[in-house]
Amino acid sequence: MKINYPNPSINHTSQKKTINRSHGMLFESALNSSNEFYRNKNLAFIYKKPTPIQIVKVDYPIRSKARITEAYYKTPSTTDYNGIYKGKYIDYEAKETEHLTFSFKFISEHQIIHLLKINEHGGIAFIIIYFRKVNRVFIIDILKFYDLYIHQQENNKKSISIPLLEEKGKEVSLGYTPVIDYLQAVDDLYFTK
Amino acid sequence: MKINYPNPSINHTSQKKTINRSHGMLFESALNSSNEFYRNKNLAFIYKKPTPIQIVKVDYPIRSKARITEAYYKTPSTTDYNGIYKGKYIDYEAKETEHLTFSFKFISEHQIIHLLKINEHGGIAFIIIYFRKVNRVFIIDILKFYDLYIHQQENNKKSISIPLLEEKGKEVSLGYTPVIDYLQAVDDLYFTK
Repeated sequence: MKINYPNPSINHTSQKKTINRSHGMLFESALNSSNEFYRNKNLAFIYKKPTPIQIVKVDYPIRSKARITEAYYKTPSTTDYNGIYKGKYIDYEAKETEHLTFSFKFISEHQIIHLLKINEHGGIAFIIIYFRKVNRVFIIDILKFYDLYIHQQENNKKSISIPLLEEKGKEVSLGYTPVIDYLQAVDDLYFTK
Repeated sequence: MKINYPNPSINHTSQKKTINRSHGMLFESALNSSNEFYRNKNLAFIYKKPTPIQIVKVDYPIRSKARITEAYYKTPSTTDYNGIYKGKYIDYEAKETEHLTFSFKFISEHQIIHLLKINEHGGIAFIIIYFRKVNRVFIIDILKFYDLYIHQQENNKKSISIPLLEEKGKEVSLGYTPVIDYLQAVDDLYFTK
């Protein structure tokens, strides 16, 4: 089933980020609308953190609001999403790829360390990956991901394949409401047994 | 004891936000450095969310990074800070005032609702308030705050006094490392008995 993307006109910011960011923005929009669905159902309160911006110049025109005239995107210090679900702290990084493997170069070491810390402190921490070509989404717990990260690199491999994610992670079913029903997969990985 | 503000040169973004935001930024810097201290001690992983920015125009100069040339501050949809402490989700809003009472106009209704939701789902949710004139900091649990919010307004009062916060909240001790040791107050309010 194809991802039923939410109305893009809702998210003006993403729209204006043009070409080199637009693809990732579609997955992000779908995740954001899923989180909105979960909030409306009172199931989970999970938000995307705003993109950090380095502000250099601001104008304060009289009688109108402050206008930023020079700024740059900054590298986020943590992950994209966090919040609360079933009384637990939840934290994840969302990644999208057009390849059939997930390359380690798309995740930074400080994000991995952050997620390992969250796990150590009793939170739920994972990576959610969207493979655009085959329209499939997986989540993988940070400990399992880290094992693969170490193991694959010891074997001179710089990525994780879909079959490995099928084995070590959990596939997320895609639908309409919500578009990306990843909390079902979270239930399977963290709230059963 | 006066708040020992961290070196402001660390936080370039705050510095550039000039006059009408600079006061709040000092309390924010002190909180940020306290959270950094807690992270370095492996005690808690709590971060300030970036200020949300509505981006309108971006230049992509050849061979250099994207430059935002028109953008505006947006109203945050949730609160300033969240993270994990002792296995629990923690979420709070930080406020500063130069008056001797805390006026309700400084907190938005959607922030109160957000914090009530976090409480309902088993998280720790509070407001931390800095009274600059007397250099005192208090935290107050969102349920207690909400009671006062309703009760005071029924009595045509639009603020909370320091004596009320002494009674209903918990004072935070100020020091050097960390500057604002609010997790001690969190322990007293949420982790004893």
